[in-house]
Amino acid sequence: MRILVAGGDGFCGWPTALYLSVQGHEVLIVDNFSRRRWDEELGTESLTRISGLDARIARWRELTGREIKTAVGDLAEERFAYEVVAGFRPDALVHFAEQRSAPYSMIDRSHAVFTQVNNVVGTLNLLFAIGEVSPDCHLIKLGTMGEYGTPNIDIEEGYITIEHKGRTDTLPYPKQPGSFYHLSKVHDSHNIMFACRTWGLKATDLNQGVVYNVETGETASDPVLTNRYDYDGIFGTALNRFCAQAANGDQITVYGQGGQTRGFIDIRDTVRCIELAANNPPEPGEFRVFNQFTEQWSVLQLARLVEKVARSLDLEPDLVHLANPRVEKETHYYNAANTRLMDLGLKPHLLDEETVERLLLTAMENRDRIHPETFAPQVDWRRPHYG
Amino acid sequence: MRILVAGGDGFCGWPTALYLSVQGHEVLIVDNFSRRRWDEELGTESLTRISGLDARIARWRELTGREIKTAVGDLAEERFAYEVVAGFRPDALVHFAEQRSAPYSMIDRSHAVFTQVNNVVGTLNLLFAIGEVSPDCHLIKLGTMGEYGTPNIDIEEGYITIEHKGRTDTLPYPKQPGSFYHLSKVHDSHNIMFACRTWGLKATDLNQGVVYNVETGETASDPVLTNRYDYDGIFGTALNRFCAQAANGDQITVYGQGGQTRGFIDIRDTVRCIELAANNPPEPGEFRVFNQFTEQWSVLQLARLVEKVARSLDLEPDLVHLANPRVEKETHYYNAANTRLMDLGLKPHLLDEETVERLLLTAMENRDRIHPETFAPQVDWRRPHYG
Repeated sequence: MRILVAGGDGFCGWPTALYLSVQGHEVLIVDNFSRRRWDEELGTESLTRISGLDARIARWRELTGREIKTAVGDLAEERFAYEVVAGFRPDALVHFAEQRSAPYSMIDRSHAVFTQVNNVVGTLNLLFAIGEVSPDCHLIKLGTMGEYGTPNIDIEEGYITIEHKGRTDTLPYPKQPGSFYHLSKVHDSHNIMFACRTWGLKATDLNQGVVYNVETGETASDPVLTNRYDYDGIFGTALNRFCAQAANGDQITVYGQGGQTRGFIDIRDTVRCIELAANNPPEPGEFRVFNQFTEQWSVLQLARLVEKVARSLDLEPDLVHLANPRVEKETHYYNAANTRLMDLGLKPHLLDEETVERLLLTAMENRDRIHPETFAPQVDWRRPHYG
Repeated sequence: MRILVAGGDGFCGWPTALYLSVQGHEVLIVDNFSRRRWDEELGTESLTRISGLDARIARWRELTGREIKTAVGDLAEERFAYEVVAGFRPDALVHFAEQRSAPYSMIDRSHAVFTQVNNVVGTLNLLFAIGEVSPDCHLIKLGTMGEYGTPNIDIEEGYITIEHKGRTDTLPYPKQPGSFYHLSKVHDSHNIMFACRTWGLKATDLNQGVVYNVETGETASDPVLTNRYDYDGIFGTALNRFCAQAANGDQITVYGQGGQTRGFIDIRDTVRCIELAANNPPEPGEFRVFNQFTEQWSVLQLARLVEKVARSLDLEPDLVHLANPRVEKETHYYNAANTRLMDLGLKPHLLDEETVERLLLTAMENRDRIHPETFAPQVDWRRPHYG
């Protein structure tokens, strides 16, 4: 299959591109390196040392004999987006190429506007390009479980059947996203659903949970292929950040009570989910939604797991509660469906002490690269800044 | 009350500004005249001859002694948006300043992107400006009944209580918008809801039905105050377009079977609804939704009404069915709630033959200004154009 991986230089996109390459697919990575630029803007960097995309691709070719093509540019730019789709004619287009940090989108007005315009326009450009030149292409779009928020009823996979005043319909699941980033994904979902219904496109929206762990079999096979490890307060997600904090002898910082429960997924499962979606495309006109996570954890449970494993490595982290910078419920009902990818054959890597230990060891090996001043949350949800 | 009317030079905004001025409010009109420019782009124009904003304001002052301030600029431009809010410090901000044509948004990629960026960024700028400098300001945002689509259950006002697997929650009503324009309004709604929840802002989202009729008491009081009358296939809504067609001796063109049922509202009620919302603000943190329409009509019913009244004026229009350029259900269930504005005191002007007759007479008086080549639908929903 010819698969375009947009955002293929990033945390999820890079391991996905390699995994798809190993499976024998013809892969084109499209990226504009914005993730690397945001590190420069924020004074953050990956805990692991990562190589440039050209070096990564060259080493992959040396090691495997497999060719991954690249196209460098911005999908929010109209000509570039059209040309990569028209030139490559993908069978599937995996779209990771969005600004994906909730705190980044909440810094101020300009970051909120950038996030929504970048994400929404990039996706619109891809939809029109697919619609005009490649309508059989299967769009595999990364959404987020955060689109749903924390309703007091079970979360289903994209749709819910509602009985109301004696009538029944199956409708898009109501969304209550918690940041301008999460909102951008909700906007995307509505736009894509419309394009499927109106133009007969086929798309899979993967509402992904919080991704933890760093390496896959492919990225771990050579130092030049190493994946990025974000641990800062802007781009680092909970488990990975906790491991970096513990490895550095710092406090593990839980926002608020830590009762916030979310769906989580190991990055080794992310790459499998993408291929499962690609190998099992929806029908033309179908907007299909999978909830892409394998288990639910509360933030406090994760913190305690990291604390326990850290102590077994002779680290002595304190677990502290910070005032929650986000506006979110800290105790709430949460029960989300996630059977559709399992039905396609996903065999989850469930979170265990071994994975946490490996993350801790990686962080300890790279301790000289930790910037502890970037752990703290620096973005306050409650205060709008025009900016 | 100090009321900022964004989009105050447009079809709904202009009569609203005058009505609020008559009620004694201090009014600032903000507009960038984009609606007049779209006419130039499309080769369309108002059936009625409309004056420039400065002339309108000057005549209003002469007639009533009332001052309406103006600020000319684009709310999608960050500095301008901030300065008008910070400078005027409105008690209420009525936001009509969006691209509001579904066909315009469906012309091609660039019109879709323009519509979504213009509408979403303008609203984000206003939210951040209000949040930073004027958090008590009540945002009164024009949404559309088209956000809901045509679900097979009753449409409620913004929220729906769902019982699901033994649990219950009241959630945002699921949206199924039918164009990139309608999608932009759904994006806005989600963004505003989030700003209310997160920053404690107060907002009313007015999901307006299709607006018909042209003049209010104020705009009809002097020729210089005349409101615009759109009748073309891009900006003209069904009833007004049918009247122009009949007045010109052309066919009344119904898209498809005409069973499409929607909520409709007389522009004389639009202006009342805005003031009712302003006089009855929500609590801080509340995102309140009113469905702003007064009655439901199918497109075919409207066409038959126009045909009947036209015949009484010795016109002889044929009623014809065109292939529907839109992707929409032509027969469907439709039952939408609209009690909240009535509860606040709205006394609807229901559609009657007198109103249709006045629209027909206005169109006949201005027959030399009709460009019949603009009646036909020129935008095909089914074919994406990259553009």
